[in-house]
Formats: sequence, structure tokens, C-alpha cells
Amino acid sequence: MHPHHSTPDNIRTACAAAQAAAADFAAQPLASRAALLRALANALEAHRQPLVALADRETALGPVRLNGELDRTCFQLRGFAEQVEAGAAQPVQDDPAVAGAPPAGRPHLTRVHMALGPVAMFAASNFPFAFSVLGGDTAAALAAGCPVVVKAHPGHPQLSRDVFALAADCLNTLGLNPGVLQLVQGAGIEVGVALVRDPTIEAVAFTGSQRGGVALWQEANARPRPIPFYGELGSINPVVALPSALATQSQALATALAASITLGCGQFCTSPGVLVVHHDDAGQAFVRQLAEALTLSRPHAMLHSGIRAGFDAGVARLQSRGGVTTVLAAPAREPSPGAHLFATEAATFVADAVLQEEVFGPACLVVWVRDLDETLQVLQAVRGSLTATLWGADADTADNRRLVRAAQAMAGRVLFAGLPTGVAVTAAQQHGGPWPSSTHAFSTSVGYAALARFLRPVALQDAPEWLLQAKGQA
Amino acid sequence: MHPHHSTPDNIRTACAAAQAAAADFAAQPLASRAALLRALANALEAHRQPLVALADRETALGPVRLNGELDRTCFQLRGFAEQVEAGAAQPVQDDPAVAGAPPAGRPHLTRVHMALGPVAMFAASNFPFAFSVLGGDTAAALAAGCPVVVKAHPGHPQLSRDVFALAADCLNTLGLNPGVLQLVQGAGIEVGVALVRDPTIEAVAFTGSQRGGVALWQEANARPRPIPFYGELGSINPVVALPSALATQSQALATALAASITLGCGQFCTSPGVLVVHHDDAGQAFVRQLAEALTLSRPHAMLHSGIRAGFDAGVARLQSRGGVTTVLAAPAREPSPGAHLFATEAATFVADAVLQEEVFGPACLVVWVRDLDETLQVLQAVRGSLTATLWGADADTADNRRLVRAAQAMAGRVLFAGLPTGVAVTAAQQHGGPWPSSTHAFSTSVGYAALARFLRPVALQDAPEWLLQAKGQA
Repeated sequence: MHPHHSTPDNIRTACAAAQAAAADFAAQPLASRAALLRALANALEAHRQPLVALADRETALGPVRLNGELDRTCFQLRGFAEQVEAGAAQPVQDDPAVAGAPPAGRPHLTRVHMALGPVAMFAASNFPFAFSVLGGDTAAALAAGCPVVVKAHPGHPQLSRDVFALAADCLNTLGLNPGVLQLVQGAGIEVGVALVRDPTIEAVAFTGSQRGGVALWQEANARPRPIPFYGELGSINPVVALPSALATQSQALATALAASITLGCGQFCTSPGVLVVHHDDAGQAFVRQLAEALTLSRPHAMLHSGIRAGFDAGVARLQSRGGVTTVLAAPAREPSPGAHLFATEAATFVADAVLQEEVFGPACLVVWVRDLDETLQVLQAVRGSLTATLWGADADTADNRRLVRAAQAMAGRVLFAGLPTGVAVTAAQQHGGPWPSSTHAFSTSVGYAALARFLRPVALQDAPEWLLQAKGQA
Repeated sequence: MHPHHSTPDNIRTACAAAQAAAADFAAQPLASRAALLRALANALEAHRQPLVALADRETALGPVRLNGELDRTCFQLRGFAEQVEAGAAQPVQDDPAVAGAPPAGRPHLTRVHMALGPVAMFAASNFPFAFSVLGGDTAAALAAGCPVVVKAHPGHPQLSRDVFALAADCLNTLGLNPGVLQLVQGAGIEVGVALVRDPTIEAVAFTGSQRGGVALWQEANARPRPIPFYGELGSINPVVALPSALATQSQALATALAASITLGCGQFCTSPGVLVVHHDDAGQAFVRQLAEALTLSRPHAMLHSGIRAGFDAGVARLQSRGGVTTVLAAPAREPSPGAHLFATEAATFVADAVLQEEVFGPACLVVWVRDLDETLQVLQAVRGSLTATLWGADADTADNRRLVRAAQAMAGRVLFAGLPTGVAVTAAQQHGGPWPSSTHAFSTSVGYAALARFLRPVALQDAPEWLLQAKGQA
């Protein structure tokens, strides 16, 4: 057994440590939780140079992106600290008693929120900081008062261990139980399965592939006591470029879209995988501009050989698919893949489920539409997506209302400008869409509403004053 | 085929009608939704006399209870109408754009909420009004802007049809699409399964048995596109009577507890099924007082023969179980069952899963404890429950804090006075607890927070002003 492969005993021990820490951590003053979140951010920044260098060696994402991602990770740790201090981790709804018989009469009821207990967090391959050991899910769970057992991603194993060691130091310095953050490791499915099955685990947060996510979601449901599984499984993020947008900004949008398709070598769950364009002169000119901009792009290497093999297979699948033409097949500059652009008709896209699958990497499929109805059919065929982007839908028209409704029906975030890559960390964010983009479309894995994933409401009836003062935290 | 048994074609047609009505109903002005909810309440009241008489013939619950339940049903329909008018069905979180580069810079993000679409609602046997055709789940779904396909409970079939006919009249009078409320019927599992499997259905609300609920929850998860399943499956609702409470109010508490155990012939999901008492003189006196009060009780007949058979089987199971003594076995006065009281030791209760099962009807199991640790073990053994009641835990002591934490860990509502039966309809209510009392412990089936079951968040990025004015409703 590899020394960094957690055994079943290791996993049990990590979960038991998290459970043993849970009650005390949930009962810590909010200032203590906030101090932990800030200390973690400070530790990341204090070790920025070696961490970014190590992350670059393990992921090939490059220092610019990795420094930015570290900034983002610190920003959200501190953001959750502020949320904790503002009371967002202990929302209270109080309904005073009303005299008289039911239904109008009632006892004093106070709705409070309890930390759920140990959370299993599956780190992502493509965000070695922001969706990893101290990423968004960990920040949200800690802010909610829940210990976290991280399943490190094998794509950046040493970085995971080094960041974990920093976090363990922070817990120690602050006098907190080391069980508050635990780490398990291993490349095989069995580590994750054992973690999800562990009876101490109260919820799972997962970012990764649809296949792996659905398998673990099924494990969570098959437990004697099923638990919430918050899986963020990626999506194809359609961008609808309407004629009104292309009439004024065609070149600028083409340049921006090419940059979004190739950003991080296309390894984002919000990477635009489908472009919906009217099949007219302006649309054809836009696709030519896009292809030119993609020709100039220089994607970096992919995260690891498995992801690269998946990309190459996805490209080959589209190249050989009936009704699909290859607009651009930029040559690979090893170890980097080349950007690819394909095109098909709306009817073909709607009829062929293979075309609706995500190709993880710098590729995009143009879907030619003739009218609004075809556009709506394409959005409906995509089913669930983290995002949908509508360029040129600003005017209040009946057609635009139909388009907005169709986009809202299939996406967790609807953009009217800009690009879906780059997900702002804020209270209004929603990073989670209908199945199959997420297993739990009502919750978000980015932004402060993620706190609600880890807080269970409890109604207190005629509670004593001391408990109400403490917002239900006994 | 029975004329009131929905065929697969009937079910498909009902769901298709709901889906066809969904977009228009979601786009109705809030005043129109509120008017519908109020019209439904008015229609129930206007037909109170024949509806209550019919309900009594079909359920044997008696006119007092049934009139009260009709009042409650109207109260919550009107309560949800007020919530709709107050904006609770369209909550908005707005984060203005911040200039600068990420992570601090960001676009304008507005978090809005969309009606989910057609909801399948499974009516309960034990609440022919309040958890049936126009019950809490229907009120919440309509308030959220979702059409509802009701699966009528076969225990009160004609009442379901009559109430549905009144609702259809209301829709017609208000000029709303009849697809907004649909009804399917049938006593077999196949009707419910077909309803949950129908691809138009976006969520399921269920009140009923653990066995039936878990089977349908599995169906919801096995769909090609899984959907949320909000199942309220009942529980055993432990009541902990601490010595400090018994020292001052023993007789009053015994009388009140006996009334709660036998209320509605014990056919409530919040009926107290377990009483945790210290094994001392005061505890023994209290149990004697409880048995005396139960002896005087006159439960009415149960809802139907199947429920009665289940109660008799549960009583027989406890009577013959090792380590369980029968404190009271009041004789049946047919068609009514007699109240039953059993007793066991904490260690026996904790070790024997059979004792932790709900006995639906007028029975309660006393669990003798010696100290706080045993009390905590009993609560932990119960696992998930809709409620837990702590009498005498008012003082701010370390012991009481441990007790409160244990109760919060296993219940959706924690009471410090009164009894768990009678669930107030208000914003702070939480009627939903950890598995197996509910399939979705984060949501409630009673009170205004139930709106959130049927509203999916969507983040709008740089949305046009007209859409923001409409709170995202295109």
C-alpha cells in the first residue's frame, strides 16, 4: 500500500476524530470560527511562493492563474469569516406566542439553525486551491460550525498535504481540536466510498465528474441513514449570441469567448461548451472571428494525462459524428492540446445525446439555429447546466421573455453579459443547476448561500431565555 | 378497473395538463395566486357542513376534530396568500457590481427564485383536510407558483373528489388554467409510482408511512432525472419528563400527556410514543397518574381497518417483547381500540431496534432512566424524530445544555413546554427531522418555510432592468 493511500482504518480514524470534535466546534464562539477562517487565509498567503510553485509542478496551471486562485481562496475564507461575524451562520426566525386556540393561537416558536456535524469534502482536480483542502466547501462548512474530512484529489497530492499541514498548525495555534479538519488520500474509488459510507459523516460536498459524482451520490442514498450529497458535476454552459449582440460587438465577443473557451485549458465547470448562433451572414462572420481568435490561443497543458485522454476522445467523437463539421482543429503543441471548434444544426444537436455531453477542455460546439423556437429547443435539450449566457436579450420583448424563461428553467445562473468562467464569491451567487449539472439544484457550491448546505433548521417551542439569547446553541 | 382508479393514461394526462399550465401560472401576478388561495379557503368554508359530514363518514375522526382541521386548512391557505403578497414567494438578494479585478471585483448579481414546475402531492390518511387535496403542501406549492397533481388518499376518496371539484370551480371562476390542480386516485402503489416517474413532475411532497415513503423516494432517485422528494414519514416523538418538572406539575402533565397520546386515536405523526422518566418515586407516581388518565380516555375508532390492524400488531409486538412490561392494556370498545402503556429499561430500549419503531395509535412506551447519560443514550437511539419534548430543562445548566444538544441532534422541533401534537402554522415552524422521520431534514412540511421546497434559486448576472423589476420573473 502506498504510504499516502488512506487505509480503511485511516478513514475511520479521521472520521471519528471529526465526530469527536463536532460538538465542541459547533459550540465555539463565532469569533473563534471567524478567527480560524482568517488564520487559514493568512497561512496560505504567508506560504504563497512555495505553495504556488508546488501547485504549478503538480497541475501545470501556471503561476498567474495559481496566484489568482490562491487570492480567491483567501478572499472566500475571509468572506465567510465576515458572514459568521454578521450572524449568517445562525439565522433566527422568531414568532411570539399568540393567545387563543389554534389555528390562530400558537406557542412561542423560534426557528434556529444547527451545525450538521462532520462533512466529507471531495476536492476537485481543476482548482488545487479554491475547490480543494481549504476551498469553498471547506470554508462554508467550517463557517457553519462543521468539522471537515477532506478527500484530497490525487492530481495535486503533495499540495494537499502541505496545505493540510498549514491548517493543522492553525488549529493547534488557536487551541482548536485537530479533528476539525482531517485529510484522507488515495487515487482509487474505494477511499471515497468508505468516506461516504462512514456513519459519522452527515453530508458530502463533491466537485468532479458526472460519473464519479453520481456513483458517490448513490452511495450516500444507499446508507442505512442517507445523507445530503451536494455534487457539482459540471455542464456545457450554452452561450446564445443573438443577432442584436453580433450587430454591434461581434469582434469583441468573439475574442472574449475564445479566451473563455481556452481559459485554464478549458478545464472549468463553467467553460462554454455550446455556442448558439443564428445561421445568417452575421452569425457566420462571428464564427469565423471566433475560429481566428481560437487559432491564436495558446492553451497550457492539461491537469493530467487522464484528462487529456478524455479531451482527445471527446474531440475524436465530435470529429467523426454524423452532422458535425470541424470548423477548427488547432494542432497540439505538446504537452498542450489545440483548441477545437465544431458546428452542427439545431435539429442534429437536439436529436443526438452524444452532442449534449461535456467535452472537458478547450473545445466548443457551434449550434446553428434559424429562429427562436430552435434556440429554445437547444436550451431544452441541454437540460441542466450551471450557467446559460444570453447576449443581446436586454430588451423587454415577448421573445426575450421566452428565452429568459427557457434559460432559467435549465440553468443555475443566467448571464446577460460577460462569460460564465470566473464565478464571483458573493451572497447572490448560485453555482448549482438542474440535474445533471448538480445533484442538488437548490444549493450552491460558490458564495455565501453555501452556508445553508450545512445548517439544519430546528424549531424551538417555548424555549428558555438563555437558549434564545444563544440563538439555540446550547 | 374501478371508475375512480386512475389509469396510466389518466395519470399522464393529469401531469401533462399540469405541465401545460406551469409557465402561465408561474407568470401570474402575485395577486392572482393570493386570490386563488383565498378562494380555496372560502370554498371550503362555504361547504363546511357537507364536507365535514362526508369526512366523518369516511374517516371516523368526528365533527369537532374535522371542523377544527377545516379551520386550520383555511388558516394556512390564507396564511400562504399573505406570504405571497408579502413577497415571500420571490425572495431577492442583490449584490451590485464592484469595480476591479476578481476576486474583489465582480459583476452585478441578483439571486432570484423560480417556481419549480408541477409538484406531485401525496395526501395523508390522517388529515383529510390539512394534509390532503388543499392541505399544507398544496398551499405551499400553489403559493410558490407550481401546479399540483394530488394523489388522493384512498381513505377518504369521495371527500377528495368533492374538495377537488370545489377547487376546479375556483380555478374556473378566476380564469385560471384547470391544469393548476389535478387529481389522480387509486389504492394501489402503481398510481403513486407512475406519478413519481412521470417526466413532467419536478418535485414530490409526501406524508405517510416510512415504508411507502422510502419506496417512492427511491423511485424519485431512480428517475433518469432525479427530483427532490419531500417525505414526512412520522416518528416516535420522545417526551423527557425531568424530575424538576414532575416535582411541581406531575398530575397536570400526566393528564395532558394522556390527552396527547389518545388525541385523534393517536393517529398523528407527532403523537408522543416514548416517555423518558427517571426511575424514582416521583417518576413511578407520574407513570401511575398517566396510566390512570389513559384508563379514563375514550379514543374514537381508527381511520380504517388496515391502520387498526397495524396498531393491534404493534401492541402485540410490545406485549410479547422481552424486557417490556405492560403497564396498561385498556380493553377495546369496538370499533375503538383501547389505550396502551408499556415500560422498559433504557438499556433494553437502546439495544432493541423493535422498541424504537413507531406504533401508530394510542400507545406509549415508558423508558426508565437512571441518569442523564441514559437519557442521552435513549435520545440517540431514537435517531431521527419530528419532535423531542424536554419538560424541566429550563435552567441554564451544563446538564440541560447536553440534553438540549442531544434533542436538537435528533429532532426537527424541540419543545420545552406543552405537547408535540398540534403543529402551529407559522414562519418559524419546522416540521421535518433527521432520517427516518423525514427524507429531507432541511425542509418543512408545515409553516411558511415550506415555500422554499418549491423555489429554485437562480443567479442573474448583469440582468436588464425590466427583469430585475419583475424579480426575475420573465
